[in-house]
Amino acid sequence: MNSNTFSKHLQINRINVKDNFWKKMMELARTHVIPYQWEALNDRIEGAEPSYCMQNFKIAAGMMEGEFKGFVFQDSDFAKWIEAVGYSLMWNKDEGLEKIADGAIDIVCAAQQPDGYLDTYYIINGLDKRWTNLRDNHELYCLGHLIEGAVAYYEATGKDKLLNAIVKYVDYVDTIFGPEDSKLHGYPGHEVIELALIKLYKIKKDKKYLNLVKYFIDERGKSPLYFEEEGKKYNNKFWWEDSYFKYQYYQAGKPVKEQEVAEGHAVRAVYLYSGMADVARETNDDELLEACKCLWSNMTKKQMYITGGIGSSQYGEAFTYDYDLPNDTIYAETCASIGLVFFARRMLEIESKSQYADIMEKALYNGIISGMSIDGTKFFYVNPLEVVPEASEKDHLREHVKVERQKWFGCACCPPNLARLLTSIGSYAYTLRDNTIFMHLYMGGEISANFSGKSVSFDIKTNYPWEESIDINLNMKEEAGFEFALRIPEWCRNYEIKVNEEKINFSIIDGYAYINRKWKDADKINILFKMPVEIVRANINVREDMGKVAVMRGPVVYCLEEEDNGPDLHRVYLKSNPKFTYEYDKDFLGGAIVLESDGLVVKEQDCDKDKLYVYDSKIEFNEKKLKWIPYYLWANRTPGEMIVWVRKCI
Amino acid sequence: MNSNTFSKHLQINRINVKDNFWKKMMELARTHVIPYQWEALNDRIEGAEPSYCMQNFKIAAGMMEGEFKGFVFQDSDFAKWIEAVGYSLMWNKDEGLEKIADGAIDIVCAAQQPDGYLDTYYIINGLDKRWTNLRDNHELYCLGHLIEGAVAYYEATGKDKLLNAIVKYVDYVDTIFGPEDSKLHGYPGHEVIELALIKLYKIKKDKKYLNLVKYFIDERGKSPLYFEEEGKKYNNKFWWEDSYFKYQYYQAGKPVKEQEVAEGHAVRAVYLYSGMADVARETNDDELLEACKCLWSNMTKKQMYITGGIGSSQYGEAFTYDYDLPNDTIYAETCASIGLVFFARRMLEIESKSQYADIMEKALYNGIISGMSIDGTKFFYVNPLEVVPEASEKDHLREHVKVERQKWFGCACCPPNLARLLTSIGSYAYTLRDNTIFMHLYMGGEISANFSGKSVSFDIKTNYPWEESIDINLNMKEEAGFEFALRIPEWCRNYEIKVNEEKINFSIIDGYAYINRKWKDADKINILFKMPVEIVRANINVREDMGKVAVMRGPVVYCLEEEDNGPDLHRVYLKSNPKFTYEYDKDFLGGAIVLESDGLVVKEQDCDKDKLYVYDSKIEFNEKKLKWIPYYLWANRTPGEMIVWVRKCI
Repeated sequence: MNSNTFSKHLQINRINVKDNFWKKMMELARTHVIPYQWEALNDRIEGAEPSYCMQNFKIAAGMMEGEFKGFVFQDSDFAKWIEAVGYSLMWNKDEGLEKIADGAIDIVCAAQQPDGYLDTYYIINGLDKRWTNLRDNHELYCLGHLIEGAVAYYEATGKDKLLNAIVKYVDYVDTIFGPEDSKLHGYPGHEVIELALIKLYKIKKDKKYLNLVKYFIDERGKSPLYFEEEGKKYNNKFWWEDSYFKYQYYQAGKPVKEQEVAEGHAVRAVYLYSGMADVARETNDDELLEACKCLWSNMTKKQMYITGGIGSSQYGEAFTYDYDLPNDTIYAETCASIGLVFFARRMLEIESKSQYADIMEKALYNGIISGMSIDGTKFFYVNPLEVVPEASEKDHLREHVKVERQKWFGCACCPPNLARLLTSIGSYAYTLRDNTIFMHLYMGGEISANFSGKSVSFDIKTNYPWEESIDINLNMKEEAGFEFALRIPEWCRNYEIKVNEEKINFSIIDGYAYINRKWKDADKINILFKMPVEIVRANINVREDMGKVAVMRGPVVYCLEEEDNGPDLHRVYLKSNPKFTYEYDKDFLGGAIVLESDGLVVKEQDCDKDKLYVYDSKIEFNEKKLKWIPYYLWANRTPGEMIVWVRKCI
Repeated sequence: MNSNTFSKHLQINRINVKDNFWKKMMELARTHVIPYQWEALNDRIEGAEPSYCMQNFKIAAGMMEGEFKGFVFQDSDFAKWIEAVGYSLMWNKDEGLEKIADGAIDIVCAAQQPDGYLDTYYIINGLDKRWTNLRDNHELYCLGHLIEGAVAYYEATGKDKLLNAIVKYVDYVDTIFGPEDSKLHGYPGHEVIELALIKLYKIKKDKKYLNLVKYFIDERGKSPLYFEEEGKKYNNKFWWEDSYFKYQYYQAGKPVKEQEVAEGHAVRAVYLYSGMADVARETNDDELLEACKCLWSNMTKKQMYITGGIGSSQYGEAFTYDYDLPNDTIYAETCASIGLVFFARRMLEIESKSQYADIMEKALYNGIISGMSIDGTKFFYVNPLEVVPEASEKDHLREHVKVERQKWFGCACCPPNLARLLTSIGSYAYTLRDNTIFMHLYMGGEISANFSGKSVSFDIKTNYPWEESIDINLNMKEEAGFEFALRIPEWCRNYEIKVNEEKINFSIIDGYAYINRKWKDADKINILFKMPVEIVRANINVREDMGKVAVMRGPVVYCLEEEDNGPDLHRVYLKSNPKFTYEYDKDFLGGAIVLESDGLVVKEQDCDKDKLYVYDSKIEFNEKKLKWIPYYLWANRTPGEMIVWVRKCI
């Protein structure tokens, strides 16, 4: 491993996202999702299943009487909320919110046990039972989210009450798990603590946190299998006995360094891979990095939807097998794509190759933000690429494929995950390596950085992903020598980069245009990424997409909705050389580029009125104008059919 | 209703099937399935789940100690076996088999209770509990099969021990169910007793049997719903509370005359519809006949696979909704197609319209006999139209889709159902109406009938479905005036009928060619049904088949198998005007017409080696010879991929 290629992401407080696209979503998360979630944590949402989250903490703290209620991982609802609160406070001071958060933290900390333990399920149900079902009972998962929340809130506010409590908990956990004979040789059934411990390690600089996560990762899947032994010892029911993935549901069927194919529960998988990448980087573990690359490659080249969706099966919310990407019985959980972005960012911090940012962009502009309605109040767990309302109602295999976003979920993972991603979205866009600033994602706003002690700020103006131009204006007191590394998106085959209106020379390495010079105040970079409408086909091994194409413009995947194109979208064909036009419609669902094309629709013939099978009859077509909208905007109007992959004449 | 259109099927003992196609399968059923099943009933099959069937009867009879074991409907295993035994004895005397059957009957009858009751589950577990869960506990279902078995064995042998026992049981049941206040107003959760009681009625001529089945049918689905009341009263768990079909799983969500769409468990549905048709005919109930026609039409024009498979969903083994015919996640249970043939035959006995026989033929030559291996030892429950072995292994939605036929099943419904159908196959081919003999199916052999007291026999020679010609030679002592009604198959658009080598005039009514004349000994009819290879497309509303075609010749549906065409069958395209050749291969899986055609296969391009999504790339083709085999013969060689619906260039 070459640590010279490592880069670090720019901290959120150095980024002021201001563009039309992301800022709007950040504000939705801040003004809608975070307050709504606080109400949900306190069971004050009418008609929604209660969360019991804050109630459990109060009971555990002895502040009220009662039983533990809700899922075993309910504590993590608070943790994800406080993390999003932290990020939002970084770019929007809000004393009222901070006060609420401090109050919540007081309750949470009051539940902590003298030894540091802090999991309400076991505090309420009996501490003697803790650590008896690591596989399914989410103790380390909840701790992982608590760490992330505590770190974010500390970084945003400087307040360390929660952080200190969590550090105490982690220090206690460190006495429980490890290679010593006296300790448990276990690891979490649902990963996330791995990447969380690295965040803690970076703040506290204490190697023991790094050692602990390294232990969790190295021990995972070793024989004899901890989960199997634990299951026998405590008589824990094993849900996946008859499944083809068995312990690989937890990515624990074999040691992680031997895993070459993404398997099992998709969210767990990408959380683990993110932690693996972190540890590989921090410990210079080449073998572990190799495993990360291999899993990345399998996942993104053989098991990912064009929207950045992963985990194609509802059964186990899991990966299935190479090129198995059904569009209609799909799972593609919003959280899984978010986890894919976590993994991508960490790989990007190890090596500056545009493939990671390309996938990050693909997931962000498509399969992730499709998870939220444009008013920020409704959410998809499942992000289908083909929807027929009657099927969602009457086909058991598609009952999980909702035609409309839902208000909130009993198991509320996707909405808070979206909130914490959107409130920190800027931090995915840039990394720094020595005197090089990488621009991985293009969003409008201001950022600042130091190069050899000189402070520089950049004013980025763009209407990305709708417009082709990105203008970067530099502000600095004195000249500074540093390097820009601008990602050339994989979808872009025609682009121009100018500095101060002049074409310049630059080299392309691993998908980045490197521009190294002495910069002075008021210098300008103008980037033009040509964005023609692209017709995309899937790899020939993707059975579901054979004979079909998808339509993209820039990073945005398009779809056809019934509202614009009528029902029976399976009868629509694109012509062999379709003509597209496009236009920015500011009134369309908050503003978006909408496409139009010519197309064909299979004609109903007389025989189709009463025959199920027709001999010696060819299909005939009528001409049809097609209207394409960005995939992420689907299901914001009248519920109806939707498709991404459309049949095409050869 | 016009009872002038009624016809009656020819009795089995007047039919001597001798052709190469069906006789071979009848012999498989007689020599393999029936003996194997007897071993299974007695738990003597190594490696197979025990049936416990005969053991339960022995325990119930006090001949041994023990508990009831197996499914609640285990008694029906004996019933289906004795029915097949009966049919086989009609065309193949076998004293040894008869002795075994008599011995089995002795055991079964010994279990009968003084009041006539005969269901081992409740005899063993407590008679006080009988009739407390009609919805799910199969008492009337088992009785239905027992009636069918008893009738068949009586008709074959003249022995009435079992028949008398069952009559006593039915007479007892008649005191339990009926419109009187003192009786239960229930009906079976799993239908079959309806059509069975009609068989009993025809033998015993006692109206009370007709009245009982009419009661079961008329009462079904009436409000307040018996199943709901019963469930509340006895606290029976309702499995389908959250399903979209609820009580329609049992075809009991509304009165049967109000049902217009085939819904719920497919086997139950077609058994019910068969009974409905029987009752409609026997009672001249026009409204009931209308319901039958409506359900027939919905099922065969909107919910049936090209193979005659019905019930597209594994969930509830059920119908879903119009035009929902997935090829890969399919159910299409062998038994459901067999039940469809039962229904078709009964409709045909009401009105001589070829649509019923056409569907019967379609199911028989394709989706039914695909259920059995060519050696008669292995069976499919599920008859898929598209199989990918990796998917059956790793996709939870397709785990039920087996790549190889299985030896026997714990719930052994399909193999014995196949046995009773095959051993009586001749009885589906012919019906008589006054002086008209209808030939619905074409099979070689001899049949005899009486016309105005004159005995005539027909010697039918054909290699149907492989060859186009059917020759009928008449044998009679004296001239006789009667009418032939020969079905013109719906797949046939070019045919010739000659009498004594001369073209004749005939009229076509409802798909039958009527030839009425004075016939004399040695008269000959020569039929020629032209059988070109046909390219068939599905109705444009069948989403799964859009852009694809199926290949047929005569009634036989063809498929592509990996063994002949390599893997990745999704990449195969038929050309827009494909050329086919065909040839009878006597060595191919027992002899069959095999097709060859030109075709195309999507070429792997360089980008397919490492890209999942490809911009601006068209698919390219290589030429490829395709070999097509009859669908019913699939999975008799090396396990691999198979498809029926193949992509086609427009």
